Amino acid sequence: MATVSASTKPALKENLKTANTSTNPVQIRVARRSPAYWRVTIDNPPINVMGPEMVRQFQELIGAIEADEHLKVVVFDSAVEDYFLNHSDFIAKLEDLTSMPAGPTGLPPWPDFLARLTRVPVVSIALIRGRATGNGSEITLACDMSFASREKAIISQWEVGVGMVAGGGPMARLPRLIGRNRALEVLLSSEDLRADQAEAYGYVNRALPDADLDAFVEALATRIAGFDKWAIANTKRLVNTSLPPDVELDAGWTACIASLGRPAAQNGIKALMARGFHKPGDVENRLGYYLGQLAR
Amino acid sequence: MATVSASTKPALKENLKTANTSTNPVQIRVARRSPAYWRVTIDNPPINVMGPEMVRQFQELIGAIEADEHLKVVVFDSAVEDYFLNHSDFIAKLEDLTSMPAGPTGLPPWPDFLARLTRVPVVSIALIRGRATGNGSEITLACDMSFASREKAIISQWEVGVGMVAGGGPMARLPRLIGRNRALEVLLSSEDLRADQAEAYGYVNRALPDADLDAFVEALATRIAGFDKWAIANTKRLVNTSLPPDVELDAGWTACIASLGRPAAQNGIKALMARGFHKPGDVENRLGYYLGQLAR
Amino acid sequence: MATVSASTKPALKENLKTANTSTNPVQIRVARRSPAYWRVTIDNPPINVMGPEMVRQFQELIGAIEADEHLKVVVFDSAVEDYFLNHSDFIAKLEDLTSMPAGPTGLPPWPDFLARLTRVPVVSIALIRGRATGNGSEITLACDMSFASREKAIISQWEVGVGMVAGGGPMARLPRLIGRNRALEVLLSSEDLRADQAEAYGYVNRALPDADLDAFVEALATRIAGFDKWAIANTKRLVNTSLPPDVELDAGWTACIASLGRPAAQNGIKALMARGFHKPGDVENRLGYYLGQLAR
Repeated sequence: MATVSASTKPALKENLKTANTSTNPVQIRVARRSPAYWRVTIDNPPINVMGPEMVRQFQELIGAIEADEHLKVVVFDSAVEDYFLNHSDFIAKLEDLTSMPAGPTGLPPWPDFLARLTRVPVVSIALIRGRATGNGSEITLACDMSFASREKAIISQWEVGVGMVAGGGPMARLPRLIGRNRALEVLLSSEDLRADQAEAYGYVNRALPDADLDAFVEALATRIAGFDKWAIANTKRLVNTSLPPDVELDAGWTACIASLGRPAAQNGIKALMARGFHKPGDVENRLGYYLGQLAR
Repeated sequence: MATVSASTKPALKENLKTANTSTNPVQIRVARRSPAYWRVTIDNPPINVMGPEMVRQFQELIGAIEADEHLKVVVFDSAVEDYFLNHSDFIAKLEDLTSMPAGPTGLPPWPDFLARLTRVPVVSIALIRGRATGNGSEITLACDMSFASREKAIISQWEVGVGMVAGGGPMARLPRLIGRNRALEVLLSSEDLRADQAEAYGYVNRALPDADLDAFVEALATRIAGFDKWAIANTKRLVNTSLPPDVELDAGWTACIASLGRPAAQNGIKALMARGFHKPGDVENRLGYYLGQLAR
Repeated sequence: MATVSASTKPALKENLKTANTSTNPVQIRVARRSPAYWRVTIDNPPINVMGPEMVRQFQELIGAIEADEHLKVVVFDSAVEDYFLNHSDFIAKLEDLTSMPAGPTGLPPWPDFLARLTRVPVVSIALIRGRATGNGSEITLACDMSFASREKAIISQWEVGVGMVAGGGPMARLPRLIGRNRALEVLLSSEDLRADQAEAYGYVNRALPDADLDAFVEALATRIAGFDKWAIANTKRLVNTSLPPDVELDAGWTACIASLGRPAAQNGIKALMARGFHKPGDVENRLGYYLGQLAR
């Protein structure tokens, strides 16, 4: 993906670099294609997991998006092959995440980022190529629109399969989007969904042939970037009456953290690690299948 | 359907047998495939209508489901060919139904059962083969998920076509699931829907080839039965913010009972009976068509 | 379309004729096919725009629908080739619209008409052949059901593309119908949707081959017209808990009027006019495309 340009504003880049992290220092790259249109590229190889440092960078990003008067469209994509955005980093210390201060909404940083993304007067578009599992699905559900590669996108909420509860709001958002019956299927089966199934359910806006996906999103983003910001902002504001209340996101996050302290999740993650989870390979590639094996 | 086993717990079976009924004494059979997974088979031949006795057995069933600490998944299917679960028994005395005490939710027994099914920390799955009309559609809508035979499933809310209002909550549930426009089409046309149409509308989770349906549901139920109950329960609890409030179910039930006292419904049911309704044959098989004939 | 009959009630026709208008005096024709079933045909050639006079006639129409005890079904169609119902009349004086008194709901006349249409105990069906843009989409969303010509229907909310906010409630209705992600795509892209796409999103009930559309709608309307009005009315009343509150329609209207006073919309409409907007031709035919050109 050639979308990561050198045009990232120095100020934001500086902040990202001063962040205290032992992994990739810049995990979220921002390319300003024009004053009205940014490309945000998630880049934490090899499998694009989300640890505390990435959450901190998402916090910085949303502050920058909110502060910019000229910005109208943000497209989220990935620089890591086979992964759009993956589950959390289970090697990182949980305290590094739970000790982060709440955001302006009063929510912890990850749901705070997602809630603010839904409300900011800027259009957010997820361009999904590769696996969107857990956090990847949650950012998709928080984006205003999403378009997925028919051949290369996989989307899932895998948490129940490993003894966890999802933390970024899918219990609040999925029923409104795809109905309670399909939301429960997605969440309780913890299965991998291909793009065509996700489109049929309304989980993503559209599945597109991989060869057409970039051009489609680029044309749409460019089109909207040419429209009037006030009209965009007021239209989105009125659509946002359909958002779930923040307390539902908060309750989901609390259940997620509680689940991590239980033996079921600890044993589940350990058993999955023993099979090759958390590094490139078959367990990550076919996570839905391996969750089923674990349950036997 | 070979799913009715002898493993039904004696206690529950005893209760069912002592029930005061002039028809089939055990209309709902429970097979415990494992401590975590029950199969509930609806069995009131020849056309699987639901009378007061079946409602009483559904009440017992939901009590047993709620009381069991190990149960995680319940699959509902049918032992009666061509019928999943059909409309109410119009030969039974209405007073036998209306005189039953309200359930723990304060709702009358049928909507009480459905409301509790949606809230119980156990996953419910409807396996639909044959006709799911009226009550059969209502239990489908109350289940967490539903899978229908592409060749053999028919789903409908037939009530308006005969001058009635539906009593088990479809006015409250369908708009949230398939949108107001399609909910009104289903309810006000009173037409039969084939499985493919029901899937396209999101009325059921998926339509599957009849030959694949049993294996698909069995694999899904077994998979979920292997997951952690706490994670399942908390995830379902958080999804349940999307449920309609009980007062909507109550209002629907009240309108249903009121409709039964009106000449329109009484004449409609009588006219339908004269054509062969309420017994095996063409009127039951093509109910949607005959409702249209009635209206001429 | 041969649906406009001479059977329109004299009283209503008289009122329509006394209306103060410089354009087509009767823009909404009512044919009473039976006491239970009316056909309402929108007829303001050449491009079926909606000006203040048409809004006034919609107000009269809804009063007549509400007052009729025998009416059960109203089908909306068009007498103008290629247009079901189009955007507003931008040549008419805006004051002629904004000076009209609020309707019984307290809403301005256009959203008042739409809100009352959703609540009246009569089934409304949109038969969409040709373009349903802006107001045409809004009346579709307020109808209880909608059926669109696969070859000849186009549906869109074009407002953001010209610097406006939509005034007839799509921000309130679309997310409930097609999910927030697709609602935002429709509204913020301002693109033209073909009938198949609209059906896939659930924006309309069904897309049908143009040759089958009239017969399908006629059969459905006739069928429902034969059912009991009390059962229809009570079923629709209970489904209507899913309607957005009127304050959301009011907020949308307010934003729409505010948008019209801003340079973005004034310049956008002017630029579009310069290319041939507001008269038969390519700009009206491919409005979505031209909005994208404008944004460059």
